Amino acid sequence: MAKVITPRTVDYAEWYNDVVLRSGLAEYSAVRGCMIIKPLGYALWENMRAVLDQMFKETGHVNAYFPLFIPKSFLSREAQHVEGFAKECAVVTHHRLKLADDGSGVVVDPDAKLEEELIVRPTSETIIWHTYRDWIQSYRDLPLLINQWANVVRWELRTRPFLRTAEFLWQEGHTAHATRQEAIEEAERMLDVYARFAEEYMAMPVVRGIKTPSERFAGAEETYCIEALMQDGKALQAGTSHFLGQNFAKAFDVTFLDQNNQRQYVWATSWGVSTRLIGALVMTHSDDDGLVLPPRLAPVQVVIVTIPTVEEPQMSHARALAEQLQRAGLRVQVDTDPTKRAGFKFAEYELRGVPVRVAIGIRDIEAGTIEVARRDTKEKRSIPVSSAVEQIQQLLEEIQQNLLDRARRFVESNTHRVESFEEFERTIEECGGFVLAHWDGTAETEAHIKERTKATIRCIPLDSPSEPGRCIVTGKPSVRRVLFARAY
Amino acid sequence: MAKVITPRTVDYAEWYNDVVLRSGLAEYSAVRGCMIIKPLGYALWENMRAVLDQMFKETGHVNAYFPLFIPKSFLSREAQHVEGFAKECAVVTHHRLKLADDGSGVVVDPDAKLEEELIVRPTSETIIWHTYRDWIQSYRDLPLLINQWANVVRWELRTRPFLRTAEFLWQEGHTAHATRQEAIEEAERMLDVYARFAEEYMAMPVVRGIKTPSERFAGAEETYCIEALMQDGKALQAGTSHFLGQNFAKAFDVTFLDQNNQRQYVWATSWGVSTRLIGALVMTHSDDDGLVLPPRLAPVQVVIVTIPTVEEPQMSHARALAEQLQRAGLRVQVDTDPTKRAGFKFAEYELRGVPVRVAIGIRDIEAGTIEVARRDTKEKRSIPVSSAVEQIQQLLEEIQQNLLDRARRFVESNTHRVESFEEFERTIEECGGFVLAHWDGTAETEAHIKERTKATIRCIPLDSPSEPGRCIVTGKPSVRRVLFARAY
Repeated sequence: MAKVITPRTVDYAEWYNDVVLRSGLAEYSAVRGCMIIKPLGYALWENMRAVLDQMFKETGHVNAYFPLFIPKSFLSREAQHVEGFAKECAVVTHHRLKLADDGSGVVVDPDAKLEEELIVRPTSETIIWHTYRDWIQSYRDLPLLINQWANVVRWELRTRPFLRTAEFLWQEGHTAHATRQEAIEEAERMLDVYARFAEEYMAMPVVRGIKTPSERFAGAEETYCIEALMQDGKALQAGTSHFLGQNFAKAFDVTFLDQNNQRQYVWATSWGVSTRLIGALVMTHSDDDGLVLPPRLAPVQVVIVTIPTVEEPQMSHARALAEQLQRAGLRVQVDTDPTKRAGFKFAEYELRGVPVRVAIGIRDIEAGTIEVARRDTKEKRSIPVSSAVEQIQQLLEEIQQNLLDRARRFVESNTHRVESFEEFERTIEECGGFVLAHWDGTAETEAHIKERTKATIRCIPLDSPSEPGRCIVTGKPSVRRVLFARAY
Repeated sequence: MAKVITPRTVDYAEWYNDVVLRSGLAEYSAVRGCMIIKPLGYALWENMRAVLDQMFKETGHVNAYFPLFIPKSFLSREAQHVEGFAKECAVVTHHRLKLADDGSGVVVDPDAKLEEELIVRPTSETIIWHTYRDWIQSYRDLPLLINQWANVVRWELRTRPFLRTAEFLWQEGHTAHATRQEAIEEAERMLDVYARFAEEYMAMPVVRGIKTPSERFAGAEETYCIEALMQDGKALQAGTSHFLGQNFAKAFDVTFLDQNNQRQYVWATSWGVSTRLIGALVMTHSDDDGLVLPPRLAPVQVVIVTIPTVEEPQMSHARALAEQLQRAGLRVQVDTDPTKRAGFKFAEYELRGVPVRVAIGIRDIEAGTIEVARRDTKEKRSIPVSSAVEQIQQLLEEIQQNLLDRARRFVESNTHRVESFEEFERTIEECGGFVLAHWDGTAETEAHIKERTKATIRCIPLDSPSEPGRCIVTGKPSVRRVLFARAY
């Protein structure tokens, strides 16, 4: 609490770093590009993971675990895939260290060179499809609906906690299907799961769409995505779901006998979200006082702070209330530490994003009330202790809804429709946000716009109405608007 | 189901592999020494993890996540630690691949050599204590009670699924304390958690003890362990908890100001259990028909199989019963697949270790009964469907208790007390099992016994009574018996 948080209006990137570091979500590690996810950040991830895992299981998926390492030759099997990942991967070349001859410590033992280098997985399509070859023989083995929770490594040059790190935690679903149609349905179903999770739990509205060919996952035929809008007007890709066609089945020779006894290549999907979602959560709701967490995911939903005096009946009152709230299923923390001032504590729990703060002082006890403060609006009110549980439960629901409503209003008021390239440039430069504009569908125009404005096509929205128009650059005909933004 | 399982009496190691592979717990991967944890094995790990995680949280610990990579120089900081791990580690030396000039695929890009090599963590003491340096300033920051769920890599030459693999999943607790006494208490507390988990959930009795100096963790002052006895008479170390003294605090310069404003080095513990526990579970309870899983950890506790006929009221009966059982909190699977014979299915669920199997045929429905079979004893009985939920719940508890009792009897009847080295050799060779014998406390005698018999001191049991005697090798005085066995 020694240093304050840089205000968003002064420097948004600094604000983000300040919030992440000072709230105790994460910090930089001694290893370049890798972060340490601190207890608060990890507890948040655990809550997100629990909800997502439940959603995956409800849609028929099971978890499994595949090796951390991928033989180098596997990466080369799918041409686009290796192109996409070879340039940023951690390569294991040796399996032993030995004492340095000069006694200066340990060095790599040259006699322990691996015959084939191993890549620390940047994603697991290759090792998994190599395995599926043995698991799939007949249409009876399909669909195969598997998810993995794992760490992955992509050697990024510029990193920021949660948003872009060399190592990150994620889940990756890898499914195999008998038909093209079934695989496409699976990819779309998992996109819907992600969108539902983002809105219902993260209170983060998203646009569902498909990527243009140039932004597709390396090896995919179609990449579906959810795109969110951060407070600074930049977009963030929050999750992707890929229809992989038969590309990996062909690369790893995965076939099955169909019901007519014909050998067919298997159809595939993969889909993932990562700890990046924590960065998205921070930049959707938080403010200049620190984190603002949606109640459904907050590791601590209610903190009860006692205002210390000489006699301390507050302590037992705080514990009794905590017990009632816990019995109602809430996640509660009690702080009766007499060595810190109440104002200091209030600021600390605001920084850490606790949705509801309860204060109990000696006067509250006499009056039979407690003071309840909500993190999202900073409003305080006094409520009777007799109805505290119901009122706090209701307040948490209100906060969850308010965060979503507020974020929705932000996206609405920062989504612009433009008709010319001049208007496009000015909007991107002066307002940021999402920009809906007509595009002629060519990679050349897309590249031209990116070069001129740093804005990219985030997606072709799935729910955008068909609307004839003319490309803002070439004037060629277009059938619907696509969504542009500068992005994280 | 095409191939049968090698009987235990024919070849125990083959039996183990057959059970693991054919039940679908795990399989070998394309990466040397790494396994694929299949859905059944992973679901079992998820259940174990959930219980352990709850136990860690109840004892005040929080989870966090530290980097996969450890700078090479960190390993050298603690002399014994580097000695223990340098010879079997995966070393990352480069961060990029490039296309081979001859078009043959990708090769390591020599221009992307790391300045300092990174080690894939074999355990995380070094990176964590490097971090704790910043986290700990004062006695107010202590104790620091952190756990991590992660993958680790130790480059083992001979590997077996779950028992010894290059990559494995585990949890590692790393705690920091103000006093020696408090750290010792923590190490002992977590040993108790492990012992309780092994007995109450895995139904696996364990001996709690301390390791001799030669068997200690690299960098520990004291290693506590739980040792279990497998069906073939070999011991398996199932979990360890280390009192690390101030070794890592000194290596990474982690100090704190105590209440008298004196700077002190911090005291440490670390403790871990891994997917190895799954191997222990298999070798404690399973039989020649496959897995036997304790109900508290079994991914599926009850399978309901319908015996197909032309009319199929069985289906709706099966689903209704499944719903009742699920409402009672049980994990249930329903199998109404008409394409496989009942006998085939029964064998399959026995192989997969499902504790209770319910069969519903047309005659059962007419009689208002179901047939219930327990996996541990293979006993079947017919029970009225009206009391099915209570009876199945009770049966699951009986099975859990029976597995523990049976395993306890096995340990008791395979624990031998011997008085001479001749008797020791004969017992180890002919009976196997745990052998309690007197030892003079020297590393020389320990090494001698190991060389002659391949038996090692598994631990000095914590609850062994003081009992004067004479070392079986040297005849020197000894104050208590220690526990020997050949071990996994």
